[in-house]
Amino acid sequence: MKFTNKIELRYSDSDQMGVVYHANYFTFFEQSRTGFLKDLGIDYYDIEETGYLFPVRDVNCTYLKSIRLGEEIVCETVLEDYSKVKLSFSHILKSTDGEIKAKGNTSIICVKRDGFKISKMDQAMPKVYEVIQSIKA
Amino acid sequence: MKFTNKIELRYSDSDQMGVVYHANYFTFFEQSRTGFLKDLGIDYYDIEETGYLFPVRDVNCTYLKSIRLGEEIVCETVLEDYSKVKLSFSHILKSTDGEIKAKGNTSIICVKRDGFKISKMDQAMPKVYEVIQSIKA
Amino acid sequence: MKFTNKIELRYSDSDQMGVVYHANYFTFFEQSRTGFLKDLGIDYYDIEETGYLFPVRDVNCTYLKSIRLGEEIVCETVLEDYSKVKLSFSHILKSTDGEIKAKGNTSIICVKRDGFKISKMDQAMPKVYEVIQSIKA
Amino acid sequence: MKFTNKIELRYSDSDQMGVVYHANYFTFFEQSRTGFLKDLGIDYYDIEETGYLFPVRDVNCTYLKSIRLGEEIVCETVLEDYSKVKLSFSHILKSTDGEIKAKGNTSIICVKRDGFKISKMDQAMPKVYEVIQSIKA
Repeated sequence: MKFTNKIELRYSDSDQMGVVYHANYFTFFEQSRTGFLKDLGIDYYDIEETGYLFPVRDVNCTYLKSIRLGEEIVCETVLEDYSKVKLSFSHILKSTDGEIKAKGNTSIICVKRDGFKISKMDQAMPKVYEVIQSIKA
Repeated sequence: MKFTNKIELRYSDSDQMGVVYHANYFTFFEQSRTGFLKDLGIDYYDIEETGYLFPVRDVNCTYLKSIRLGEEIVCETVLEDYSKVKLSFSHILKSTDGEIKAKGNTSIICVKRDGFKISKMDQAMPKVYEVIQSIKA
Repeated sequence: MKFTNKIELRYSDSDQMGVVYHANYFTFFEQSRTGFLKDLGIDYYDIEETGYLFPVRDVNCTYLKSIRLGEEIVCETVLEDYSKVKLSFSHILKSTDGEIKAKGNTSIICVKRDGFKISKMDQAMPKVYEVIQSIKA
Repeated sequence: MKFTNKIELRYSDSDQMGVVYHANYFTFFEQSRTGFLKDLGIDYYDIEETGYLFPVRDVNCTYLKSIRLGEEIVCETVLEDYSKVKLSFSHILKSTDGEIKAKGNTSIICVKRDGFKISKMDQAMPKVYEVIQSIKA
């Protein structure tokens, strides 16, 4: 299951190379992850209100072509793997005319807000975990 | 009493005009406010841990000369006014060779973290308030 | 003429107060200005490619209610005034259920990329200037 | 050769998890790379003025412990590898009391500003390349 969303670039995303600053790609990946979950009926902000967070554990990105303001950019996100405590996503940023701009991966882990202790999703949020299981079944 | 601190510019502060992006000036003002308070023995992060926050109520900035990465920039901050619930600062950004880059003002208000209800500093943090009073006496 | 656009909040817009960081409001204002111009057939990025920029000269913002991630936020932008070298906008950020979050103003000036010398729009970009004149006629 | 610099955290670096936002770690890595080069007598901003840029080609980061505002953080940067067109760095973020916060890597490539065409450092900037060679000799 692949989720695709349009990325809304901001002027502040650019840097003095005249292209989108590299670290901002991770905010695009995140917008796409949030959209991915929302598309499955999972509102990440609602999860946070129950006292759980999903901080990032690992990220990587390979930059293939620079992105310029004014370009139409989409992000494709796929859930590549999961466990009871971790979700692993892949992301592809591309222009709407098909040019691949960057490829990356993110893994996020489930923790309690208090103390950032790792938590198991099947116990902390069984309905969310069921949805995750269902799409990888 | 005027507090002066050096601003550490980041590559991400620039935009595709080749200069520092305008909204980032407010992060410089804030670094200078935090330094101003620290210089008086007030650690803003410690205040937050007691359950109080100082969100921004009003800001303004006039941009006179653009700032380029590699320039040596300082921010001068003065406490212009205060009440039991509000602190008002003025800020001047200048290069170390004296060129004024921007002038701005910020007012911040004291609130409780829970509910963002306005709180009086003389009751919520009497020692902090005493210090504030002393420098404007 | 009032232009309204939806603001796409990012996780990175939040700060440790649990609300949207104050300086980021200026990126929202800017997204709305860019949308305002686009709505009139003026592509700001195209203007930049002709060698002219519109750096910010003055901004201000009053923060009335904090914004939380997950809220639906729109920005209303109005061109309040203009001259041959400056455009002045007002902005209102509000939730889709009508709560006003912040009010601000921005003025931007027309300069040549080379040297940031102030330029007159009626000469540098007569068609853009005609459109500006027409909406304030 | 290991370069170490202090990271100046900003309030805007935090997010609503109450910790430093993950994408901002890459701005810390970059500050450290710029400092690393400066320490060798290479001013990156001077290089850009000669018409060459070093965009990021690959990054990764593993987040081990969250960083909170008020913590004293340093970044250790090592040049791990180089070629005529690429520099590869490793980075470790740690608190001044020795807790490792994150580990990451960045590779940057040498391109001409016009067209982002890959350029060989030994031809484009022989003195810079000599310095790079000398520290890995």
